[in-house]
Amino acid sequence: MSKLKVGILGATGAVGQKYISLLQDHPWFEVCYLAASEKSAGKIYADAVNGKWCEPENIPDEIADLKVREIGSVPKAAEYCDFVFSALDTRTAAEYEEQYAAAEIPVVSNAAAHRWDPDVPVLIPEINPEHCDIIPVQQKNRGWDRGYIVAKSNCSLQSYLTPLYALHEQFGIRRVIVTTLQAVSGAGYPGHSSLEMIDNIIPYIPGEEEKTENEPLKILGTIGDGKIRKNEAVHISAHCNRVPVIDGHTASVSVEFESNPSQTDIVNSWNNFSASEQVSALPSAPGNPIIYHRDDNRPQPRKDRDAENGMAVSVGRLRECKVLHWRFTGLSHNMIKGAAGGGILNAELLRARGYL
Amino acid sequence: MSKLKVGILGATGAVGQKYISLLQDHPWFEVCYLAASEKSAGKIYADAVNGKWCEPENIPDEIADLKVREIGSVPKAAEYCDFVFSALDTRTAAEYEEQYAAAEIPVVSNAAAHRWDPDVPVLIPEINPEHCDIIPVQQKNRGWDRGYIVAKSNCSLQSYLTPLYALHEQFGIRRVIVTTLQAVSGAGYPGHSSLEMIDNIIPYIPGEEEKTENEPLKILGTIGDGKIRKNEAVHISAHCNRVPVIDGHTASVSVEFESNPSQTDIVNSWNNFSASEQVSALPSAPGNPIIYHRDDNRPQPRKDRDAENGMAVSVGRLRECKVLHWRFTGLSHNMIKGAAGGGILNAELLRARGYL
Amino acid sequence: MSKLKVGILGATGAVGQKYISLLQDHPWFEVCYLAASEKSAGKIYADAVNGKWCEPENIPDEIADLKVREIGSVPKAAEYCDFVFSALDTRTAAEYEEQYAAAEIPVVSNAAAHRWDPDVPVLIPEINPEHCDIIPVQQKNRGWDRGYIVAKSNCSLQSYLTPLYALHEQFGIRRVIVTTLQAVSGAGYPGHSSLEMIDNIIPYIPGEEEKTENEPLKILGTIGDGKIRKNEAVHISAHCNRVPVIDGHTASVSVEFESNPSQTDIVNSWNNFSASEQVSALPSAPGNPIIYHRDDNRPQPRKDRDAENGMAVSVGRLRECKVLHWRFTGLSHNMIKGAAGGGILNAELLRARGYL
Amino acid sequence: MSKLKVGILGATGAVGQKYISLLQDHPWFEVCYLAASEKSAGKIYADAVNGKWCEPENIPDEIADLKVREIGSVPKAAEYCDFVFSALDTRTAAEYEEQYAAAEIPVVSNAAAHRWDPDVPVLIPEINPEHCDIIPVQQKNRGWDRGYIVAKSNCSLQSYLTPLYALHEQFGIRRVIVTTLQAVSGAGYPGHSSLEMIDNIIPYIPGEEEKTENEPLKILGTIGDGKIRKNEAVHISAHCNRVPVIDGHTASVSVEFESNPSQTDIVNSWNNFSASEQVSALPSAPGNPIIYHRDDNRPQPRKDRDAENGMAVSVGRLRECKVLHWRFTGLSHNMIKGAAGGGILNAELLRARGYL
Repeated sequence: MSKLKVGILGATGAVGQKYISLLQDHPWFEVCYLAASEKSAGKIYADAVNGKWCEPENIPDEIADLKVREIGSVPKAAEYCDFVFSALDTRTAAEYEEQYAAAEIPVVSNAAAHRWDPDVPVLIPEINPEHCDIIPVQQKNRGWDRGYIVAKSNCSLQSYLTPLYALHEQFGIRRVIVTTLQAVSGAGYPGHSSLEMIDNIIPYIPGEEEKTENEPLKILGTIGDGKIRKNEAVHISAHCNRVPVIDGHTASVSVEFESNPSQTDIVNSWNNFSASEQVSALPSAPGNPIIYHRDDNRPQPRKDRDAENGMAVSVGRLRECKVLHWRFTGLSHNMIKGAAGGGILNAELLRARGYL
Repeated sequence: MSKLKVGILGATGAVGQKYISLLQDHPWFEVCYLAASEKSAGKIYADAVNGKWCEPENIPDEIADLKVREIGSVPKAAEYCDFVFSALDTRTAAEYEEQYAAAEIPVVSNAAAHRWDPDVPVLIPEINPEHCDIIPVQQKNRGWDRGYIVAKSNCSLQSYLTPLYALHEQFGIRRVIVTTLQAVSGAGYPGHSSLEMIDNIIPYIPGEEEKTENEPLKILGTIGDGKIRKNEAVHISAHCNRVPVIDGHTASVSVEFESNPSQTDIVNSWNNFSASEQVSALPSAPGNPIIYHRDDNRPQPRKDRDAENGMAVSVGRLRECKVLHWRFTGLSHNMIKGAAGGGILNAELLRARGYL
Repeated sequence: MSKLKVGILGATGAVGQKYISLLQDHPWFEVCYLAASEKSAGKIYADAVNGKWCEPENIPDEIADLKVREIGSVPKAAEYCDFVFSALDTRTAAEYEEQYAAAEIPVVSNAAAHRWDPDVPVLIPEINPEHCDIIPVQQKNRGWDRGYIVAKSNCSLQSYLTPLYALHEQFGIRRVIVTTLQAVSGAGYPGHSSLEMIDNIIPYIPGEEEKTENEPLKILGTIGDGKIRKNEAVHISAHCNRVPVIDGHTASVSVEFESNPSQTDIVNSWNNFSASEQVSALPSAPGNPIIYHRDDNRPQPRKDRDAENGMAVSVGRLRECKVLHWRFTGLSHNMIKGAAGGGILNAELLRARGYL
Repeated sequence: MSKLKVGILGATGAVGQKYISLLQDHPWFEVCYLAASEKSAGKIYADAVNGKWCEPENIPDEIADLKVREIGSVPKAAEYCDFVFSALDTRTAAEYEEQYAAAEIPVVSNAAAHRWDPDVPVLIPEINPEHCDIIPVQQKNRGWDRGYIVAKSNCSLQSYLTPLYALHEQFGIRRVIVTTLQAVSGAGYPGHSSLEMIDNIIPYIPGEEEKTENEPLKILGTIGDGKIRKNEAVHISAHCNRVPVIDGHTASVSVEFESNPSQTDIVNSWNNFSASEQVSALPSAPGNPIIYHRDDNRPQPRKDRDAENGMAVSVGRLRECKVLHWRFTGLSHNMIKGAAGGGILNAELLRARGYL
């Protein structure tokens, strides 16, 4: 089987770079097309990211010399790429993602622009792979044949939603209060000034709390009446903080269930959790999607963010909550699980289900 | 009026050092006596702290040459000092604080050892100055004439309890979920290794969550039947994290009230809050005990920890909670408000009320 | 005596902010005029710096409401201000400083734009106060009556030049190799991304090594033939690194003398060093301009940068060099001694010598 | 070929842990024996390092259950292990390494204890593999048959010595001034307190400058008269600083040659440098031992420390020195190239040369 040709929209930013890094030697996908803003357009990639390449490895040789295209000049479908990953910021995504989809190029997006379109799925393959099935509805709604948009969720919720979902089916989560301690890479490059982040915390990330609270309701929702209907039974309140950590978002979670499980119930649910067979077989799927730690000191960003190549969610510190039912700490790699790695897993799922 | 002679137990640790730094030029108190473990005993102070002095200013000259006494050789009352500050760790405090009190030397303690003795007040002068009045009961219980023990609360709750108290009287706080982001100075010196704290979070501080949850109930309690009875109507659940910040504990707080106030009610309560006249007149009392920020980005440790010489609590990010009633972020300087500065204010209060 | 009216060019940047912070309650100067780029012009100062105010204290009330002027609309001389501090970047300084001077407003500059004009003095008051006397020549050269430009040196050399100068007069410095470890505040706000500076070093600061090597030669030079002639006998080689420190530049220095002093000679020179009587009496002059530490662990940025209100240079680790003669470590606060504090001391010197 | 059985002395410390991590799946060596201090002896390894395991990956299963032996109970030769890596601190190494060698167990040491014994080689395989040939002399001197001690150099010099050596043969290095910016992992665990290292630099590392200056002279020396004679023609002066970086020592180097090369000469020497064929074929040898960067911003610890699995030295910023001849920045991973990885490469070399 020949590899699918992949484009990356927003290829020069931090998430775009992570896509390039993670897609090296991917068994199914091959990066062939790069698009970015006018500033970069026309340059070879190495020049376009000069001085702001953030990955520890060098730019892959075959990518370094690739010419960066202007985001606005949408290629004819399939001429250059079978589908694109969108690592665009929200505003640019809002402007261009539909243009690519209309050009019949599927868009696997990291951006928030279309997450609340009722016919666009927000996918976490371990949780809601069946939401892919809204795609034909979306195509019909919008008059597209081969093009469509799927989104991944915001990075902030990747650190706590999979462990909650593992409990949800059996015990029904009802109310959640979560405080996130989010890494600086989540703000992109340059993001926060070093003057703001050394020896400091910033207690506010614009728009982040709304996403952290609302997107899970859609992910835990169901398809009905030609749209994805959010789960109205779940209520989440989020405090989002930026902390001086390079990679890895940590979440302190308190949760109330419909039916209060025992500690053993919870640990068993986590230890026994696995994605569907289809998802578990995907090339980027973590062997163990939830890693439960008994040691009180874990999870920690520097020790646990790279578990399962950055695709696992680590949990620990499970104990009773004095106000709701249970408390725990969750952690995932915001740039892999929470960004490019999650996007790649979404594309692999789409391929497995015949949408690519 | 001549100054009171003050001793410091645990003088070589980080909190002991902060006491020495803050008591320079204090109008009422003068450091005359230093005690520490065997390792330091017999040395002059400058030698005893050699290589582990953490304060930015040099050791005051008059302290540098003071001989450090062995913690276990309790001086005869009033011969050397009118009272002592205890900056001992919990275990050492449990062993020695009563010996000093029994030698008729009042102990103004930072340690947790006696916080749950029902006849020992845990004082935050802005909140419960009247708890001092348990002291005569304590002295009678224990057969002490002039000696007694008063405690200050754990540093972790200083960042959120005063703002809650400002609302409590009028609206009745009922349920609180708080996540703390605590500075490394709170662990003392050496505390956490730099290998643990650069680019990392530790989601666990032994014993800290219990203190953060329980001590407020005593502070908000009342004197009755010869003891301090905790407030049974308040329920607090705490997640305590260690973060790579030098000084300043941040708290993300969700709270439910008996009577849900409006945003204006809350802001007014904070802006109008002041301690009692007696407390406000103390030399170390902050002019403004609660500083409310409208800017979404505040409070931040590096920008706000030094407000009012480190004795204020800064609050911000007031917004409705999706699960309880309201959310906000609180911050205070854990080494000043939350440690030595708080202890000094306690001693000033005791002096003003005639207990010193 | 009424205070001189002061303007600040580049008032919204990090150095401009530091000027505002340090000039609060200055006995001689009062900030009355603020200028910045078009983006800020027309706003009140509080709005213009909204979200990028870096100082720990709040904006002084009387400054917060001051309207920011456009840098290019130079006021008529003395109408609004008796002189200006320039905290402009080099390019903007090159464009505007002469316009202000030509409008007969003296410019006390932090910028590099005119440091190599032979009739512009680069002042470090402890070292070369007599270089002020080139001012009448400059005014004559350029046809200005009251206006002129004086510069301060780059922050990178403040950490090592005063201690070298203390030895220079007696022993003659000849060759110097210096490696600087420079704080992130030196790059201004936003400067370096937190992604670049947490757990990292950047071994390059554009233009910094040239300044670190060349400016000392002018400062150690002499006035002759109507210009400042650089000291040709001194040779400096600099390695400039950016390190994850908020404030305080550290310098590792190896030095060769014309006449090799003993260790005692050097320590005595440092301990006995003082500025001229005129300079020592200035309001911002450090009581002790060079603070020598015997402790091998010092100086350190966090412990020593604030010595003498950030106006001292701290030195330590004096030991023989295996290649040149002697080695030591120097440190100063790059935002105070090395930027706004140094500029204010320059203005005080100009006032004392009758140029303001 | 069956794998050699390897012991690790000082197995619970940071370097011991790194050995365990790097030796997983090693083609030639298999960890079978762990020794540490009394405190750990008798415990299984997982319990002995509980709470201080620093590596990002978990403890390998087969090691976790291995019982830790007391360092002082030296096993009979070859019963348990074919040779040992010593990750002991200097003092403990001085006490025990000879006992292991005398028990006919070769000791491949990271410690400084025997580096200055004239019959003990200090090996950097890219530089002086032929120094192995002193081993028979050492065995004869000390009456050992199979046992011997070889040392690796201090981590501080790994960042600059290989690039200097690449030039040395042709141009003769004569005088070097080097300032190191050393990572906190170099101090072991716990090493420096986070209170010392966040927002700070420590300008002193006890004993480090002497090692940085002297060990290269032995490494560049020659075997003669039954001992390794140091190179008397080279003079090095070092400034060693501790910086808030987790891994990766950076060095700012100025160097003078006997015969001053051109920039092209130097770049060519670096780009063409390779170890001997024998060394290049070793399993842990870097494909490219010296990686030269043209980009002024490189090398940087976070971007370059992992090059060639942490076994390369990265160099950049080559430019003329104003005092000596040339300047550059070097960088290597202090825990891999500079510690456990370097030790493993030494053992591989010994195996290739028939000493194991």
